[in-house]
Amino acid sequence: AQGNYPHNNSSPPTWLEADEDGQWTMPAKNYASTRYSGLSQINRDNVKDLKLAWTFSTGLTPGHEAAPVFVDDTLYVVTPYPNTVYALALDGSKKWEYKPDTHQESQGMACCDVVNRGLVHVNGKLFFNTLDNHAIALEADTGKELWKTKVGDLQRGETMTMAPLVVKGKMLVGNSGGEMGVRGWLKALDTETGELLWTAYSTGPDKDVLIGEEFRPFYAQDQGKDLGASSWPPEMWKIGGGTVWGWLSYDPELDLVYYGTGNPGPWNPDFRPGDNKWTLTVFARRPDDGSAIWAYQIEPHDLYDYDGVNESLLIDMPFNGEQRKVLVRPERNGHVYVMDRTSGEVLSANTYVPVNVTDGVDLKTGQMRKVKDKQPGTNRTVHNICPAAPGGKDWQPSAYSPRTGLIYMPHNNLCMDMHGTQANYIAGTPYVGSDVKMFAGPGGHRGAYTAWDPVAGSKVWSIKEEFPVWSGTVATAGDIVFYGTMDRWFKALDAKTGELLWKYRVGSGIVGQPVTFQDKDGKQYVAIFSGVGGWSGAIVSGGLDARDGTAALGFVNAMKDLPQHTDKGGQLYVFSL
Amino acid sequence: AQGNYPHNNSSPPTWLEADEDGQWTMPAKNYASTRYSGLSQINRDNVKDLKLAWTFSTGLTPGHEAAPVFVDDTLYVVTPYPNTVYALALDGSKKWEYKPDTHQESQGMACCDVVNRGLVHVNGKLFFNTLDNHAIALEADTGKELWKTKVGDLQRGETMTMAPLVVKGKMLVGNSGGEMGVRGWLKALDTETGELLWTAYSTGPDKDVLIGEEFRPFYAQDQGKDLGASSWPPEMWKIGGGTVWGWLSYDPELDLVYYGTGNPGPWNPDFRPGDNKWTLTVFARRPDDGSAIWAYQIEPHDLYDYDGVNESLLIDMPFNGEQRKVLVRPERNGHVYVMDRTSGEVLSANTYVPVNVTDGVDLKTGQMRKVKDKQPGTNRTVHNICPAAPGGKDWQPSAYSPRTGLIYMPHNNLCMDMHGTQANYIAGTPYVGSDVKMFAGPGGHRGAYTAWDPVAGSKVWSIKEEFPVWSGTVATAGDIVFYGTMDRWFKALDAKTGELLWKYRVGSGIVGQPVTFQDKDGKQYVAIFSGVGGWSGAIVSGGLDARDGTAALGFVNAMKDLPQHTDKGGQLYVFSL
Ligand SMILES: O=C(O)c1cc(C(=O)O)c2c(n1)C(=O)C(=O)c1cc(C(=O)O)[nH]c1-2
Ligand SMILES: O=C(O)c1cc(C(=O)O)c2c(n1)C(=O)C(=O)c1cc(C(=O)O)[nH]c1-2
Repeated sequence: AQGNYPHNNSSPPTWLEADEDGQWTMPAKNYASTRYSGLSQINRDNVKDLKLAWTFSTGLTPGHEAAPVFVDDTLYVVTPYPNTVYALALDGSKKWEYKPDTHQESQGMACCDVVNRGLVHVNGKLFFNTLDNHAIALEADTGKELWKTKVGDLQRGETMTMAPLVVKGKMLVGNSGGEMGVRGWLKALDTETGELLWTAYSTGPDKDVLIGEEFRPFYAQDQGKDLGASSWPPEMWKIGGGTVWGWLSYDPELDLVYYGTGNPGPWNPDFRPGDNKWTLTVFARRPDDGSAIWAYQIEPHDLYDYDGVNESLLIDMPFNGEQRKVLVRPERNGHVYVMDRTSGEVLSANTYVPVNVTDGVDLKTGQMRKVKDKQPGTNRTVHNICPAAPGGKDWQPSAYSPRTGLIYMPHNNLCMDMHGTQANYIAGTPYVGSDVKMFAGPGGHRGAYTAWDPVAGSKVWSIKEEFPVWSGTVATAGDIVFYGTMDRWFKALDAKTGELLWKYRVGSGIVGQPVTFQDKDGKQYVAIFSGVGGWSGAIVSGGLDARDGTAALGFVNAMKDLPQHTDKGGQLYVFSL
Repeated sequence: AQGNYPHNNSSPPTWLEADEDGQWTMPAKNYASTRYSGLSQINRDNVKDLKLAWTFSTGLTPGHEAAPVFVDDTLYVVTPYPNTVYALALDGSKKWEYKPDTHQESQGMACCDVVNRGLVHVNGKLFFNTLDNHAIALEADTGKELWKTKVGDLQRGETMTMAPLVVKGKMLVGNSGGEMGVRGWLKALDTETGELLWTAYSTGPDKDVLIGEEFRPFYAQDQGKDLGASSWPPEMWKIGGGTVWGWLSYDPELDLVYYGTGNPGPWNPDFRPGDNKWTLTVFARRPDDGSAIWAYQIEPHDLYDYDGVNESLLIDMPFNGEQRKVLVRPERNGHVYVMDRTSGEVLSANTYVPVNVTDGVDLKTGQMRKVKDKQPGTNRTVHNICPAAPGGKDWQPSAYSPRTGLIYMPHNNLCMDMHGTQANYIAGTPYVGSDVKMFAGPGGHRGAYTAWDPVAGSKVWSIKEEFPVWSGTVATAGDIVFYGTMDRWFKALDAKTGELLWKYRVGSGIVGQPVTFQDKDGKQYVAIFSGVGGWSGAIVSGGLDARDGTAALGFVNAMKDLPQHTDKGGQLYVFSL
């Protein structure tokens, strides 16, 4: 698979700065969410000599999912709950730390471990969220708190785990709690003052969803008035989920923010006949006032907890002979969606893992063709649902290399049995109505790392992994990609061939996001958290009993052997040549 | 300081196997407790190239003090409470783990963090203690529990943190709890069955202390009947301390086990007029029946919590023109004692840190000359006591290199103010009667690493460290020594000159014990736990409030800035070239 790249004539958006500045200021690296670095000091030829420069222990044992951020020779990290922020010098010493006052009860509210996915550095300020629903801004030089705004309500089961996106002086933040009957939202705060500027709910009448004059959904089923309320049994949109706990991208030329919404609640679909809009929906919104420009509901009436919160990679690529501005979304439902990001049209949606609950997307209507006999419901068990609830891919974000034109996806290979039960809404308690048991998908491996050609809509190469690949990934101009495994390997592959070039045994399984950057003397580093946890790793981070397969919402059944490979414990690893 | 070594004609005992087998089977490396390895692949010239091979996270956050043990290409480690044992392959993968059922209350009983100092491998079996007073034997190949014996009583405030010594089919174990009015003891268990063979109490009548016919103490003040009872106010020997939480050595030729006992309780000396025998006493005992052969009370009527539990290094060395079998004891009271190990005679006792509470040992009588106006008592504050309660050196064990003839001592430089208060004995609660505030000793640094010539009785070189050096150390035939610092550096020095040859930034401060070993292919490794804690690190591992200087029995006052340098979190580091 050597040769001229990219074969496929894809490219980053024209507005994306092509020059690499060596910094890493936000988890997604840039607004296009390519997680690509133009650095090449560490490359295909010498990555075998990569050495651990130093480590830093956080003393915390939940899953460490955050991407480190690097600006002006300082590394910034935010930990899982209690969401301590550290500024570290490049010799590994602490410059400062900031420990927010947090509410302990938030730990009991989080569905999937008390994780945090990262902070953002903009103009000398750091922005991040706490599990207990506070958005916080710090002075990057000193760690001084500039402001702190409460945006959610623990009593209703709300929490926050997502990394914010900062756009045009606004900090965009969303909530978690889809398994607690929370009503999802995206909020914009003024980065100077922390003041709430607007709230876009995921469910409810158009005025709450910020659907107005300019709203132009591409497909018929997404058109109509107040669908966010009328596609639900009366009042149920108020506890209907559609949380916003994943990734946001931004196209400054089109002035559109993109993100997807989570699953409807409860999981058991019998309790919510209807399309359940706008759960599992991709939104394009104006950052200034939040108004919706288009929306596409990936799956009306979700059956399997296929949250639509995954990353949107913004690239330009040929489609039917024409160059299109697209967003590429490796969806939880097992398909990589390529969508026109100006209009919300689905250009292609091909499976990257075995899928047996749908027959794919009808590209004319945008509708998902569901397989009838895989429909779960109360007191009914459906066997062998593929993919399982965490999907073909969960939150773990992909990367795009303009040098290969490929998307690099860390992902799962899981199926499940699902049994519908009763579900009663009590504020601040689980609202699921489903018993799940997950297991390895076809092939017997539970994870994979796949290079995907978004133009051809097909796999180029794929590496099987024993466990779900629950880490992020980074691609570099050195033509290598990095990712971590839950059984404690940090790996570098040849971006073109997938050949394993280097691996390193870290202390605890990896569910963090690798980043790379260069110091002011031009030396390149790679950094990643180890510290297993998250939904997939809860058996270890939460010390769950392997005998109860339904624990951790059914994930434990698929991860019984994880404790043989790793214990918990958060530690930052910084590598260099 | 280059030249022919050893200058001083010291040597290991003649019975010590000179050939290096590349294993590390017990924390002290051998019965002589030299902590010296004959391996030299990693040496003065190439240690600068030492690299981290892999790490392993325990997911636990107390102080990690244990020495790893290496036998047949397997590393064995025991963690702090809950005292999990891991067998790890040399690629860092887990072979097995053993989690004892333990009583959570034991955590509240430990004076100085819930540490454990290591396990021992003998003939395919592993031996270790749990904080909640169980001695346990495991099958090394499988982790199968062979037996488990309860040897102490949590209700009385007993705990266990020490590493056992196995001698002649007996596992020797001692208790902790000197700050709870515990009565100290050493017990011998049958290594095959776990059966209790004998108990030697540290206080009480001769029959309890196993003082009989053969007992020949060298000095007059240690001779007499039932001194362990009569040197106390009535009955107070029953709650008098003298715990056995430190290190044991063994001379197979003389067939004597050596160890020292802890402080008398309570700290406030007004409550216990008398010599308080046999606290702060070095014992020589027969392993077969525990009978005492000689004893030397280092300090009768201890005033400052100067536990006498430190390591005894067994070497042979010239003294006044004659070669003597000695034990070298870097005591907590700030003196390095050189004692004839056949008789208990003190040959020399010179200070290695500033001492202002005594005028040294009278070598004729063996008696410590105490400075009157430094005597603390109820409602009295004595200022500037040097050394402070943790002594010139606490439990952190020294090493001896036969190539240099020097003793390498990781140690403290701390002084304190002490204020006597009331003390009431209630079983299982603190029994101290003293408020302490520690601070840096003369020079302003709080720790040092010192090379000591036991023959000359003087310092050869010394490296100042900002924090107490609370790690162990190892000396090797590569003429290097290793130790770790609480501010996250693992260091290698030239054993002859003290020159810093290499340092590495680990994740959390080091209070563990480095060891070195070689795999079956002849590759040498160095391993050490990071994970700050122990008494000195309790401010971090226990999350104590820096504003209360008297917290952690007064240690917090001296460690307020430690949290700026390190967080907690246990991780094993394994290095190789
Ligand atoms: O519906 C929600 O609000 C919500 C929140 C979260 C979260 O905040 O971590 C997860 C999920 N859902 C979820 O479905 C999921 O698979 C998941 C995995 C993880 C993780 O961090 O490993 N979080 C979440
Ligand atoms: O009197 C006792 O029983 C006892 C026990 C222990 C222990 O078991 O760790 C310590 C001490 N005392 C003690 O005096 C002391 O300085 C100390 C330091 C440490 C440590 O692990 O850092 N433990 C202990």
